[in-house]
Amino acid sequence: MATSRQSFSQILLGRPLETAAAPHQAIGKIPALAVFASDALSSVAYATEEILVILALAGAAYFHLSIPIALGISLLLIVLTTSYRQTIFAYPGGGGAYIVARDNLGELPAQTAGAALLTDYILTVAVSISSGVAQITSAFPTLYPYRVEIAVGLIVFMTIVNLRGVKESSTAFAVPTYFFLGMALLLLIVGAFRWVTGTLEPITGVEMVANAVSPLTLFLVLRAFSSGCTALTGVEAISNGITAFKEPRSRNAANTMLAMSGILMTLFIGITLLARAVHAQPSEVETVISQIGRAVYGNGTFYLLTLISTTLILIMAANTSFADFPRLAALHAGDGFLPRQLTFRGSRLVFSWGVVMLAGIASLLVILFQASVSALIPLYAIGVFLSFTLSQSGMVVRWHKVSRMQPGEEVEVHGSIMRYDPQWRWKQIVNGIGAIMTFVVMIVFAVTKFRDGAWIVIVLTPSLVWFFFRIHHHYKAVAADLSLAGENRMIGARPLRTIVLIDNLHAASIRAINFAMSLGQPWTAVHVSIDSDRTADLERKWAMRMGETPLVVLASPYRSLTEPLITYVQEIRQEAPDAYIHVILGGLTTESFWQQGLHRNSTMVFRMAFRHLEGVAITNVPYQLHHLPHAMVADRH
Amino acid sequence: MATSRQSFSQILLGRPLETAAAPHQAIGKIPALAVFASDALSSVAYATEEILVILALAGAAYFHLSIPIALGISLLLIVLTTSYRQTIFAYPGGGGAYIVARDNLGELPAQTAGAALLTDYILTVAVSISSGVAQITSAFPTLYPYRVEIAVGLIVFMTIVNLRGVKESSTAFAVPTYFFLGMALLLLIVGAFRWVTGTLEPITGVEMVANAVSPLTLFLVLRAFSSGCTALTGVEAISNGITAFKEPRSRNAANTMLAMSGILMTLFIGITLLARAVHAQPSEVETVISQIGRAVYGNGTFYLLTLISTTLILIMAANTSFADFPRLAALHAGDGFLPRQLTFRGSRLVFSWGVVMLAGIASLLVILFQASVSALIPLYAIGVFLSFTLSQSGMVVRWHKVSRMQPGEEVEVHGSIMRYDPQWRWKQIVNGIGAIMTFVVMIVFAVTKFRDGAWIVIVLTPSLVWFFFRIHHHYKAVAADLSLAGENRMIGARPLRTIVLIDNLHAASIRAINFAMSLGQPWTAVHVSIDSDRTADLERKWAMRMGETPLVVLASPYRSLTEPLITYVQEIRQEAPDAYIHVILGGLTTESFWQQGLHRNSTMVFRMAFRHLEGVAITNVPYQLHHLPHAMVADRH
Repeated sequence: MATSRQSFSQILLGRPLETAAAPHQAIGKIPALAVFASDALSSVAYATEEILVILALAGAAYFHLSIPIALGISLLLIVLTTSYRQTIFAYPGGGGAYIVARDNLGELPAQTAGAALLTDYILTVAVSISSGVAQITSAFPTLYPYRVEIAVGLIVFMTIVNLRGVKESSTAFAVPTYFFLGMALLLLIVGAFRWVTGTLEPITGVEMVANAVSPLTLFLVLRAFSSGCTALTGVEAISNGITAFKEPRSRNAANTMLAMSGILMTLFIGITLLARAVHAQPSEVETVISQIGRAVYGNGTFYLLTLISTTLILIMAANTSFADFPRLAALHAGDGFLPRQLTFRGSRLVFSWGVVMLAGIASLLVILFQASVSALIPLYAIGVFLSFTLSQSGMVVRWHKVSRMQPGEEVEVHGSIMRYDPQWRWKQIVNGIGAIMTFVVMIVFAVTKFRDGAWIVIVLTPSLVWFFFRIHHHYKAVAADLSLAGENRMIGARPLRTIVLIDNLHAASIRAINFAMSLGQPWTAVHVSIDSDRTADLERKWAMRMGETPLVVLASPYRSLTEPLITYVQEIRQEAPDAYIHVILGGLTTESFWQQGLHRNSTMVFRMAFRHLEGVAITNVPYQLHHLPHAMVADRH
Repeated sequence: MATSRQSFSQILLGRPLETAAAPHQAIGKIPALAVFASDALSSVAYATEEILVILALAGAAYFHLSIPIALGISLLLIVLTTSYRQTIFAYPGGGGAYIVARDNLGELPAQTAGAALLTDYILTVAVSISSGVAQITSAFPTLYPYRVEIAVGLIVFMTIVNLRGVKESSTAFAVPTYFFLGMALLLLIVGAFRWVTGTLEPITGVEMVANAVSPLTLFLVLRAFSSGCTALTGVEAISNGITAFKEPRSRNAANTMLAMSGILMTLFIGITLLARAVHAQPSEVETVISQIGRAVYGNGTFYLLTLISTTLILIMAANTSFADFPRLAALHAGDGFLPRQLTFRGSRLVFSWGVVMLAGIASLLVILFQASVSALIPLYAIGVFLSFTLSQSGMVVRWHKVSRMQPGEEVEVHGSIMRYDPQWRWKQIVNGIGAIMTFVVMIVFAVTKFRDGAWIVIVLTPSLVWFFFRIHHHYKAVAADLSLAGENRMIGARPLRTIVLIDNLHAASIRAINFAMSLGQPWTAVHVSIDSDRTADLERKWAMRMGETPLVVLASPYRSLTEPLITYVQEIRQEAPDAYIHVILGGLTTESFWQQGLHRNSTMVFRMAFRHLEGVAITNVPYQLHHLPHAMVADRH
């Protein structure tokens, strides 16, 4: 069974990899852009649409507001980029929000940033995959009823790929990213040309979502702005991955970030303008990208290629979470704030627990929200903006520390070298503006999206942080308890009492008896009597086989297997307070799991019953049942 | 933890009962009728309605056909009653279909009858509870959206009651049964009086289910007949429970059965006639009983009392399955066709596993079928009719055996005494007619309901039987394997090799080492190296604490905990082929389960990995973590 399961997992996941095989390789700017930009760039696939979804509540007449909103978001992007470039230079070893907050603000903000990021990585998978599936179902509306199944199928597929371990080959990223970039720019250019030449016809035949059900209020405009801010998710990716760049790392990373932001801004504003030009309508069944594509190209090859490239970049974006979530979770776990198991690398060197956890929760979200991007959006991005705020605030504190240093002095904290910088005030102001703006956006987001789902994240994040600290406290308490510094850690033998549990006298119990005999110490056979007929039968067989060896029978009037034994063990404990009490049980091992379910499997029951009794060791002596055909079994006796 | 869980279960289930407390008590005919008739009588709450549901497909104009259909079903009831009375006399020790089939037809028919009955007990719970909830929601339509929740809640409640153990106090049954009987007869009498006096107005305002979508065919009439046959479910109950009657048992049981059938017929025909008289319409939201009640009484107290009594009898009917299913499952399990665990009596003397299994599957059905009686009906009753057929066929074979006996000769099989009976031919014909009629009805049922859901049962029943036999084969093979008859069952010591697994050196591993030392045999410390830094750290600590004691380090390049150890154990096995290999592991025991999840819990992993290796015993030496407040932990060291 073990072997067949293993080989099945090997077929699925590939042969195990040695620890020494972990790769390290630096990449150039062009492939690096592909690796780190897919998350940020892919969000243009839904950001414009989500602005229109909210504006539609006031009526299609207000769709023109999408343009100033997009410009406002672009302004925010410029601030963020400037602010994050400073982080990139300050943390050449990688300056994710968790690390920046931990170094400058302390554990609580760091855990908060981490919890927010982990939540948002999960949402990135759910949103990106849902949007990717929406592109597919826009082209093939007959697939619409199966969108949840397709989305979950994609997540399962990505889970397998990531459990195998994605060799972070930059080519694998470069092809879809540049394919998307090419198709998106082509769409903008051809679209602009047709618009200018007056050959771009407004799209028709789209059934719009709820139209003009509320007046246009400032609140509604802010809600639309919040929805559009999802375009900014993922811009922090480069600051996490600086070590992947060639030297001079920080400079290369900073320039790549600039390029990425420029492209993102171009695409976002371009798509928003084109959506206006073609009178795109937010709809349940056709994405805005599909509508623009249809208006610009008609239903031909280029339309399909545009949607395929968009789907691919969205899948790549989800895939970056499959790399980032397990890595961040392992970082938390290494610091003792998440279960240690998250730091274990599986047979293919990946943090398997993290991959499976991410896939499980993301799938659940996709199912609960029926793969609807608009339903997921209110949960998304709030965590990203929280981590932006914490990261920028951390930088503000850092510049304060820098201002107090002597010129020439250097301090290293976690691979980040701090030295005096005469421009600290200016840089502090930049990060300060970044922190304030992202904080304001976060508050706007929380307030305007509260009832649509943001409350879930607002409740969840502090609960997660609280839970992280409970885990941390537990690990600290355990470490103290296990420490060898105390007095009672003496090495040496202690007295021993051995009990062999006898349920019935057959080959399996004889094996347990033989094992006890092999230990060469005195032992006592004990039987818990639940059924008096069976006990009488056992006593008869015992006398016949075991002769004078005594058999202690414990009555169990309430038919409990464990209670009489616990009482018995406690009696021995009183007699010999510092003895080890060694309980030996036979057990049957069947060939398959369904057969195992046909037996009592009492080892488990006893382990549970004795778990809180100090100094009781439980030995399981398994007896392997060999599934012989009937005739052969008969032969053997 | 164990204590608090126990006391919680004691609050829920009551204090444990001694084995000696199992009650035995015979009851009179009037209370016996209450105990055994609830299942049969309660089916009049839905049988008429389900006939109308099918006739509605042809149109309300054909509702008058419900009367001849009900008369046909009544004829079938007369045949069944006559036939079953003979079984009651032949099996004074209890003549359920399983026992009659086992004694006369063999194992395969017996297991088939059993599988069919077990399936139908589950459906009895699902159908009766769904119908009971439908009565409630008829009176209070605002509860309709919560019908599934209410139904599952009722099942959970009944599970707790039955895990506590229902003292089969006949009073508890008598009150609701006779209350229902009284209310139902009153409804018929008042209804008949108002009809005769011309004051019974047709009911209005009921939204009917699908109307006149297909022509009236023979097939449709047979489908309606099949649906109505659900009225006959439960009539076999008395033949299972003869031992509960006062002496002369068989005579009392037979007379009770006669009374029950008479009442059932009266109620069924009466309700069908009244439904016609008030122009009752099958509907999703109001039951036919409710419509009749409303027409006869208006919306007053008597209307409510009628529905309450109907709900109560339906709950009582479901409750009989909670008694019968675990009992029959324990019978199968005792014969080795179902997991042995089903024969264990819990702390309150009930077959807890059976109760939980029944409740689980019934709840699942209620959820899947949204507590709709009409959706469940096609699955129901087919199993009952299969068991009727097998039971009556068994009786036919029995009369054949009887015919070959000498007058005065007596043979006892399983508590049933067989003696020559001059009237055997006549009795054989009666049972033969019963067998043929129930067989024909079963075929009609299977064919007409096939597409509506009967196929599920038709596929399920043989699969269950096949699975029962696989279980049986497994138990037989295990018994042969464990038998002490063979040669290799020698008692005596064998060589021993002891391994102590060391992950890290701390209080828990020291406890494991001390235990190994206490055994007084040589032992070897073994460490599986997954992370070279941690291994180096361990080796340093080991040298400091353990001095010269060697520590075997097994490299694990693929980060598997178990594989290097399995290889190591296999090497030892080659050296010492007949030795016991004793693997000792420390382990942490936390105070609560969520904390246990934060640790590796490798004992389980090793137990799984070693389960197929012969002669490897695994000892777990738990170390109890004491959750002290921070300050105290610090104090201790």
